[in-house]
Amino acid sequence: MRMGMDYYPEHWDRSMWEEDAKLMQDTGVSLIRVAEFAWSRLEPTEGCYDFAWLDDAIVTFARHGIQVVIGTPTCTPPNWLVKEYPDVLPLDAQLHPHYPGVRGHRCFNSPSMRHYSELIVEKLALHYANNPAVVGWQIDNEFGLHECNCEHCNLRFRTWLQDKYGSIESINSVWGTVVWSGEYSDYSQITTPLGGTRHKNPSYLLDYKRFETDSVVEFQQLQLNILKEHCPNHFVTHNIWSYPMSLDYYKLCEKLDFVSLDYYPSTSPEKAVTSGYSGALTLDLTRGIKRQNFWIMETISGPPGCWMPMWRTPHPGFIRAFAWQCIARGADTLVHFRWRSAPSGAEQFWHGLIDHSNVPGRRFDEYRELCNEVRKLAPLMEGTEVQSEAVILHSHDQFNAFQMQPQVEGMDYFDNIKTIHRAFTKLGIMTDVLSEKEDLSGYKLIVAPSLFLLDPDLASHLEECVKNGATLVLMPRTGVKNENNVCWIRPLPGPLSDAAGVTVAEYDPIGRDAHTIRWQNKSYSCSQWCDILTPQSAEPIAWYEDDFFTGQTAATVHTLGKGKVFYLGTFPEEDFYVDFIRDAAEQSGLHNFPGLPEGVQISIRANESTRYLFLMNLTRKQQTVQLDRTYRSLFDDRNIDQALTMDPYAIEIVVLPYKNA
Amino acid sequence: MRMGMDYYPEHWDRSMWEEDAKLMQDTGVSLIRVAEFAWSRLEPTEGCYDFAWLDDAIVTFARHGIQVVIGTPTCTPPNWLVKEYPDVLPLDAQLHPHYPGVRGHRCFNSPSMRHYSELIVEKLALHYANNPAVVGWQIDNEFGLHECNCEHCNLRFRTWLQDKYGSIESINSVWGTVVWSGEYSDYSQITTPLGGTRHKNPSYLLDYKRFETDSVVEFQQLQLNILKEHCPNHFVTHNIWSYPMSLDYYKLCEKLDFVSLDYYPSTSPEKAVTSGYSGALTLDLTRGIKRQNFWIMETISGPPGCWMPMWRTPHPGFIRAFAWQCIARGADTLVHFRWRSAPSGAEQFWHGLIDHSNVPGRRFDEYRELCNEVRKLAPLMEGTEVQSEAVILHSHDQFNAFQMQPQVEGMDYFDNIKTIHRAFTKLGIMTDVLSEKEDLSGYKLIVAPSLFLLDPDLASHLEECVKNGATLVLMPRTGVKNENNVCWIRPLPGPLSDAAGVTVAEYDPIGRDAHTIRWQNKSYSCSQWCDILTPQSAEPIAWYEDDFFTGQTAATVHTLGKGKVFYLGTFPEEDFYVDFIRDAAEQSGLHNFPGLPEGVQISIRANESTRYLFLMNLTRKQQTVQLDRTYRSLFDDRNIDQALTMDPYAIEIVVLPYKNA
Amino acid sequence: MRMGMDYYPEHWDRSMWEEDAKLMQDTGVSLIRVAEFAWSRLEPTEGCYDFAWLDDAIVTFARHGIQVVIGTPTCTPPNWLVKEYPDVLPLDAQLHPHYPGVRGHRCFNSPSMRHYSELIVEKLALHYANNPAVVGWQIDNEFGLHECNCEHCNLRFRTWLQDKYGSIESINSVWGTVVWSGEYSDYSQITTPLGGTRHKNPSYLLDYKRFETDSVVEFQQLQLNILKEHCPNHFVTHNIWSYPMSLDYYKLCEKLDFVSLDYYPSTSPEKAVTSGYSGALTLDLTRGIKRQNFWIMETISGPPGCWMPMWRTPHPGFIRAFAWQCIARGADTLVHFRWRSAPSGAEQFWHGLIDHSNVPGRRFDEYRELCNEVRKLAPLMEGTEVQSEAVILHSHDQFNAFQMQPQVEGMDYFDNIKTIHRAFTKLGIMTDVLSEKEDLSGYKLIVAPSLFLLDPDLASHLEECVKNGATLVLMPRTGVKNENNVCWIRPLPGPLSDAAGVTVAEYDPIGRDAHTIRWQNKSYSCSQWCDILTPQSAEPIAWYEDDFFTGQTAATVHTLGKGKVFYLGTFPEEDFYVDFIRDAAEQSGLHNFPGLPEGVQISIRANESTRYLFLMNLTRKQQTVQLDRTYRSLFDDRNIDQALTMDPYAIEIVVLPYKNA
Repeated sequence: MRMGMDYYPEHWDRSMWEEDAKLMQDTGVSLIRVAEFAWSRLEPTEGCYDFAWLDDAIVTFARHGIQVVIGTPTCTPPNWLVKEYPDVLPLDAQLHPHYPGVRGHRCFNSPSMRHYSELIVEKLALHYANNPAVVGWQIDNEFGLHECNCEHCNLRFRTWLQDKYGSIESINSVWGTVVWSGEYSDYSQITTPLGGTRHKNPSYLLDYKRFETDSVVEFQQLQLNILKEHCPNHFVTHNIWSYPMSLDYYKLCEKLDFVSLDYYPSTSPEKAVTSGYSGALTLDLTRGIKRQNFWIMETISGPPGCWMPMWRTPHPGFIRAFAWQCIARGADTLVHFRWRSAPSGAEQFWHGLIDHSNVPGRRFDEYRELCNEVRKLAPLMEGTEVQSEAVILHSHDQFNAFQMQPQVEGMDYFDNIKTIHRAFTKLGIMTDVLSEKEDLSGYKLIVAPSLFLLDPDLASHLEECVKNGATLVLMPRTGVKNENNVCWIRPLPGPLSDAAGVTVAEYDPIGRDAHTIRWQNKSYSCSQWCDILTPQSAEPIAWYEDDFFTGQTAATVHTLGKGKVFYLGTFPEEDFYVDFIRDAAEQSGLHNFPGLPEGVQISIRANESTRYLFLMNLTRKQQTVQLDRTYRSLFDDRNIDQALTMDPYAIEIVVLPYKNA
Repeated sequence: MRMGMDYYPEHWDRSMWEEDAKLMQDTGVSLIRVAEFAWSRLEPTEGCYDFAWLDDAIVTFARHGIQVVIGTPTCTPPNWLVKEYPDVLPLDAQLHPHYPGVRGHRCFNSPSMRHYSELIVEKLALHYANNPAVVGWQIDNEFGLHECNCEHCNLRFRTWLQDKYGSIESINSVWGTVVWSGEYSDYSQITTPLGGTRHKNPSYLLDYKRFETDSVVEFQQLQLNILKEHCPNHFVTHNIWSYPMSLDYYKLCEKLDFVSLDYYPSTSPEKAVTSGYSGALTLDLTRGIKRQNFWIMETISGPPGCWMPMWRTPHPGFIRAFAWQCIARGADTLVHFRWRSAPSGAEQFWHGLIDHSNVPGRRFDEYRELCNEVRKLAPLMEGTEVQSEAVILHSHDQFNAFQMQPQVEGMDYFDNIKTIHRAFTKLGIMTDVLSEKEDLSGYKLIVAPSLFLLDPDLASHLEECVKNGATLVLMPRTGVKNENNVCWIRPLPGPLSDAAGVTVAEYDPIGRDAHTIRWQNKSYSCSQWCDILTPQSAEPIAWYEDDFFTGQTAATVHTLGKGKVFYLGTFPEEDFYVDFIRDAAEQSGLHNFPGLPEGVQISIRANESTRYLFLMNLTRKQQTVQLDRTYRSLFDDRNIDQALTMDPYAIEIVVLPYKNA
Repeated sequence: MRMGMDYYPEHWDRSMWEEDAKLMQDTGVSLIRVAEFAWSRLEPTEGCYDFAWLDDAIVTFARHGIQVVIGTPTCTPPNWLVKEYPDVLPLDAQLHPHYPGVRGHRCFNSPSMRHYSELIVEKLALHYANNPAVVGWQIDNEFGLHECNCEHCNLRFRTWLQDKYGSIESINSVWGTVVWSGEYSDYSQITTPLGGTRHKNPSYLLDYKRFETDSVVEFQQLQLNILKEHCPNHFVTHNIWSYPMSLDYYKLCEKLDFVSLDYYPSTSPEKAVTSGYSGALTLDLTRGIKRQNFWIMETISGPPGCWMPMWRTPHPGFIRAFAWQCIARGADTLVHFRWRSAPSGAEQFWHGLIDHSNVPGRRFDEYRELCNEVRKLAPLMEGTEVQSEAVILHSHDQFNAFQMQPQVEGMDYFDNIKTIHRAFTKLGIMTDVLSEKEDLSGYKLIVAPSLFLLDPDLASHLEECVKNGATLVLMPRTGVKNENNVCWIRPLPGPLSDAAGVTVAEYDPIGRDAHTIRWQNKSYSCSQWCDILTPQSAEPIAWYEDDFFTGQTAATVHTLGKGKVFYLGTFPEEDFYVDFIRDAAEQSGLHNFPGLPEGVQISIRANESTRYLFLMNLTRKQQTVQLDRTYRSLFDDRNIDQALTMDPYAIEIVVLPYKNA
């Protein structure tokens, strides 16, 4: 477990390097990430490579005990490349080039882009393979889908479809193109989604999204092959951007050694409570991508801002607290962005730890304290992992499908996941967040938010988990479609109807209209959607209290083998989820942490012998947490009272006896 | 009078046809509309026609006594056509093609589009001319203006102008192009409205809109000629979309046998009261297009939704009630959209009567009841028509002119018509809504909302009607311009000043600022616009109560021949219109229906011997209507109390003695 | 001092000219501006000039004692020019032409545009050089930046950069292009800002804005050269549009004889108080451009409106009052827009003094009264000027830099200037508003709002002014960057730190979050930004009352030589500025006018012997002003009480004894 810094030697006069390196060393920084936007400096003109300046920088920092992660610079094709090989630039739906500006001005399927990317990466790999200071690589920067409609993309899309479907008849049949005369009689008629209207056949659009992900994965793989060949002892990672995301991170990260996350929790006082919860979800999602610990490759060290207005500066304690949140939820290394704010360029006001003034200040002092703490506790954290008996399912395909076809005003797939995850976090129940494609056996509680696209394999796997003892929670808009984004012609929830023991007789997309349900003799508001349920073998457990469906069934439970399936026919308010999940968790034998104040989170990292409990007040208010007994703080061996008063952004870490959550 | 269904055989496995046909027959459906988006199935590749599947479908349904309307599929040019003949695609103001997506991707002036449309329509016409199950045709689908700036459109626009104006000097003079150096020295300099700014010479823009309508009309006429030639015994119609509309429906429908309307009243609880009123206006407008009864070619049978979020599901009674509203206001056949929701394509969630589940449910039961009722009452309705002594004028030209030049914040031509029509409907006074071009003689009360463009012919005709006894109501922004969208250089209301006996001394575009007027010793709020009036031969009847024009005249009445002309100088709140129209109607000898609760409507269909009164509660609330005496319900021969309690969406139809409204 | 009218002879039938001229003469109009959009009438086809109609018009008006300003018509290239020489049209960031519509459809660097502009201007200059009725010229109309990305613009931009920077290495270094691989290896790689993202290197963007200004200035200079050569006895001016503005008006007006302003104060009742203050700033800015009196070339005479909805009609007294406001703040001639509303074209509803009705009305009567007053007082005003001892600095560069990089939600450079200027105006303290580049010596109080870009020369000049006795007020975001838009690597306020005796330890971009400061034992709210200050040699004078920086310094004062420097670390509410400026002004020996009601303004024009005090109630309410003694009205020699009651839009002008403000 170590502390690092994003550093851009090319932004600073050489005379500053030595001083920066020394100050880092004194502060406790042992790693820097470099070069990930430096293509124009590494290859100023075509084929003329200049790595000398980077060598010098690495030597300088190595002298101070600082190791190096090199970012491949392919996110920023230089001007000579763009000018001489215009196929590099992506074309929008009206075939307009996306010219250079805020990075990412490249088509992943462009032959020139691929060729020159491979060349620069190979040169770098060969040059740094045996540099003792270099420990690993970051490929590119924050991949995302970047719509392109160039001829290369069109050709590759057609090939991709041919590989997947074979005949054109098969595509017509699977996509249901007969609607609105969309049938193709020849592959050449298929194009990427061109302009005019965003609203096209949803099966086609979903496949296009998958193709886009595959284009990014392929582009990354070209680099990964080179790096693995020439630098077998180096790790290779990529720094993902946040959620929600159209690009399928599960596919993207499959071949990487580990995942890195760029993490910028909101500093806004208005989000002082919610941003900690959103962050917890992001971190759990990141840990779930490869089901292992991860790195933070960038995180907040000052007010972000750029072309958009600046955010608030991080409140005292904020930088430290959110760093500990990362560790608590599975981060093993923290690289802060960035050492010092850039004096020029479009990102001048995305602040570093040190301001343009070059005078280390309040935030720097806080960071230094953090480094000291991490150094002290790192040996204990070694080999520990987050453990969870509950899991929430997540899918980029579902997200994309809902984006294409918003079901109803106010319904957002990812927001619903956030609400459910927040309920877990408020209850102090650790939860994994995993791809639907994962093996889910072993989990006691599985929450599956809106399995809109549902193929029989997933349905079977979930049914199997239930039969073996799991509790499964289903929600509206489950089983609507098959994986091709075509509706099942059968009652909802489609392939899970039998497992749930219930069918949907009718539904009402209520959107933001106010409605309530009754569950365990209490009323809860609900919104977005109302499935009016007909229990088959299931038991009703909640009922609607409004509208023409007053008294009809709103939720059911169905016992199946050793487990049970809940079907929630609507989206209730968060209080319901808290009560319902507490109940379901208790029935499943999961412990919760009673009485956590709003905004205070816990997390547990454990190895075979020890469990470390993190208590984190991620708010601007003093808060009191009621513990089950006294503990000793790992920071300073202080005694911690049962009634623990936590200052704003205070953190405590204690040893938790095994068998006693 | 019959019940029909929109049905897409090509969306379903053939094995389902028989079952669907049988269920329709059992339910009371005797008509289907088919094929209107099936070009790619009817002509899978250029010149290869395949009608066998449609023949089979028609035979199957005919076996169950179901007749067929065929839609020509020209709204959805297939991919082979788009790919091989790219002139099919319309070009926007920056010459970007509008690629296929949500239908309508075609330029009406494209030679290829016209050629291949004629071919497919001719093939269809020849093939189905003598098919006994086929009764008529729907041309294309929901025509609208679709901006195109291709070379063909440019050439035709120039020809159109040459036909209308002759010399280029004449255009310069009529349009007043001298302003801002817009004079043309050659026809080649005139183009369709290209990009840069939407704000151009308004005379030019209005003529361009007229040209656009004529392009659609011409495109339709090509098909109409073919259908009338080959299928002389079939009717030909078109299904118009809703209002307001830039395309001139009056011109569009001139040569059709009758008009069809696609009618989707809002299911939103927030619009539970207003949507019935908007619908009444839409139906009256539709009836007015050809001054005769019409068809509903599509109407709601489940929650609409598609790319946009879904609406609420229709409340119990909603589908039935709005079906009866259509009949009450002049529909003779109702075709519901659609039998079953599409499993694929962009319109998956525009629900049919049967859900994807394929299990007929609550809505289906309601529809079945409706079919039974219609079957029972159809013989009585035969040959009946809606009668009215009041008329509201409407014009697409006015609408377009106001769209180009919004006069003031909050003023909307069509919204003002809605408000006036709602006042009539609340009073239970039937009103026609007609084109300004119609012969208006015979009406006792004529309301002319904002005759912005006013040519002397219309002014003379209105004056003649007044002299013969009609009451005419004028409103602000009347007589501002001639038909070329050029301002009259004379006091407002221009050519109607003499008839109104009043001139506008000055005006203040008050927008949303709060003002009041006093009329008959009562204050009413007003907004949008204040004409400060100078009565010439007219009498003042209302006065402003605010601002620097306090005490000045806000409205006048002028006796002219046997009639009179009211000039309202502002747009008062709806309560004013209710009071004012009640008053004007009484003076004109028109009966109103006192005490109608909000949202409850009446309508009367009559033939020479009998009048049928429809009472419709188009709200979610129970409401009580006070009748003048007891009646018997035509549905079940029940006695109806004078104090009639109507459940949500309840309908009653009774016989009304002649000479006793 | 004279009254004029914008008149378009080409819009009216010749038969109307004589009558119009006569009515103008009777009313007191002695000047018209003509021809500024009449290119298509002056040169109907290429090379065929027709000035006969204009000659006739000028003769007609001259006969009635009316002189003429000719506008060059280059704002509206005619259709033949656009069609034959398409390089005239500007291309947007996606290279789409901006087609004709609302004027200004021309690229300033287009060779054809320049060539044909020079030709028409030369023809006009030669033709009218010796016409006795013609007194001067207006070049083009309301210049603004009009983004163009054509090849000519690209070439000129590169030349412009080469002239400024020489080598490509120099550009890379000055702009800091190394960030995100933006380095150029060849000039050919530099383009104008093409599409994809607006967010690019800010140094590059700022230079591009400067280049755009220079393109306009160069285009204007071509005309200026011709006019000065052929018409040495005529003045040449340009009518600028309002503020804020990206185009640098200081550069634009450098070579003109005087500046003209187009001034349209808002008629909205909601802005009834604020629009007078905004107008005062606009007028002060205009007077400051060349530090001399100016013309109003267009101003309101009826409700504006056009493609946008119409404004309210000017309230009685409004036209007169705002005309006097112009004179009070330095206007020497007023030309009202326009004589009569246009009957055709896109600007039909931008009303003239006379409506389309052609019946002079209330507004006309008010204008006639105004003409009488001006005629009476003109001799007194001759040679008088506005005098001020306070100055607010303004810069188009700063404005542009902040536009590119909004610092924080709610912070707007120009709005902050408005607030400060309003405080001065409420206090009745006259203030100049000048370019930062001006010599500021002699001012007692200098307010410098956010000198974001701060080069050492400006810092030195300000420091010098202070040492010589001035009071300087600085505000947040001062000294952030050098003139190349690159951040200083030194503590804020950068080059002014020493003069201010303070450094910024840290800042918090608080945006719209509520905070307060304490100054002179009173709390004031503040927003946008909080600099947490470390006084070096300065004294703290205000402190924060919230957040983690409670009790820290919010403002300081530093004595330097004979003067002092205030540094305000945040943007307080307007009340603070009023109190603070009153205090600072008093300390600097500036008199204020105590007790002015909100919306009532004063201004003073003076010559060596006499001072004229203007009292202006620019609101819709009656207001009472407390004077120091009785005066006599210059309008009618009435006695004016010490407690002066002013009706809505009332104006008084009195002689103010020297040495007694």
